[in-house]
Amino acid sequence: MELEFWYEFASTYSYLSVMRTEKLAAEAGVPIRWCPFLLGPIFAERGWETSPFNIYPERGRYMWRDVARRAARHGLDFKRPSVFPRNGLLAARVALVGLEQGWCPEFTRAVFHAAFAEDREIGEWEVLSEIVRSLERDPEEVHARANAPGNKAALRERTATARARGIFGAPSFLVGDELFWGDDRLEEALAWAS
Amino acid sequence: MELEFWYEFASTYSYLSVMRTEKLAAEAGVPIRWCPFLLGPIFAERGWETSPFNIYPERGRYMWRDVARRAARHGLDFKRPSVFPRNGLLAARVALVGLEQGWCPEFTRAVFHAAFAEDREIGEWEVLSEIVRSLERDPEEVHARANAPGNKAALRERTATARARGIFGAPSFLVGDELFWGDDRLEEALAWAS
Repeated sequence: MELEFWYEFASTYSYLSVMRTEKLAAEAGVPIRWCPFLLGPIFAERGWETSPFNIYPERGRYMWRDVARRAARHGLDFKRPSVFPRNGLLAARVALVGLEQGWCPEFTRAVFHAAFAEDREIGEWEVLSEIVRSLERDPEEVHARANAPGNKAALRERTATARARGIFGAPSFLVGDELFWGDDRLEEALAWAS
Repeated sequence: MELEFWYEFASTYSYLSVMRTEKLAAEAGVPIRWCPFLLGPIFAERGWETSPFNIYPERGRYMWRDVARRAARHGLDFKRPSVFPRNGLLAARVALVGLEQGWCPEFTRAVFHAAFAEDREIGEWEVLSEIVRSLERDPEEVHARANAPGNKAALRERTATARARGIFGAPSFLVGDELFWGDDRLEEALAWAS
């Protein structure tokens, strides 16, 4: 069965999965559906105006240590971002264009690397446009498509779908209606799918 | 190095670890220090009057499914308790007596089994006294010791220590000052300790 991989560009644990999913899924013979979405509107319904890692400081302190340890374990570069969370809205809109045009996975990996290995401001178009150009796509055309009303609506709809299917955090994996939450459930989700 | 195993009797994920820690730690050659504590006072500081799994229903729905899946994976019986969370106060006080007298691990496993495999009311002395008796201890004497002012104070102090060391959930594992949170970090904590 297919693995739906739901991720949010601002999410630290999504970084770990973005860098691991393709290889592990290939080994397991499981096709991936890349599903960028926004967690902010789902958090806002709980009354959270920022990440719970900022709201609960001891939870945040632990998360930074845990992510650094797990990145090391997986052999991934990791640099704690100087701003957290970054705004993943524009990146998610661009990723939807990438989905239509077939370059979403490469774009996603490059943005997460910029955010969590290089501490770059992925909320800004300047940073994203550089990545789009590196994928040999026309930044102006991509920017126009990303900000078209239909694309904005598609992202809102996708986020509503995530919520309706029980997603409350990122990364999340869906195999049919079976939900797995967190990078540490990636292997279990793949086993379920295969 | 030693693994400090911090657990709360009301905690679902603590059940998974309580049933797994001793065997895995023995295989890794790591000594365990059993550390019962109360999570309620730590949650109360966040303004939570019950489990976050009750406060955030989608989080709760996921937890029940996740715990059932992981219990099956580990070959553990699991029956969703008809009341959640149960009150772990008296069990924790009795466990401290068990720590002094050397029967804390057996008592702890029996209580968690009663709570999460048999749906018994572990908040009641009737259930706990049966377990104490099965360990060939005198329930009356244990009850008196559990409710002695010094023992109550020791539990409060232990909970304050947990908070001071950065613990915010259960189960938690400490290896020196290195904190690991969640049953899914047990193997990583043991690897760190050995």
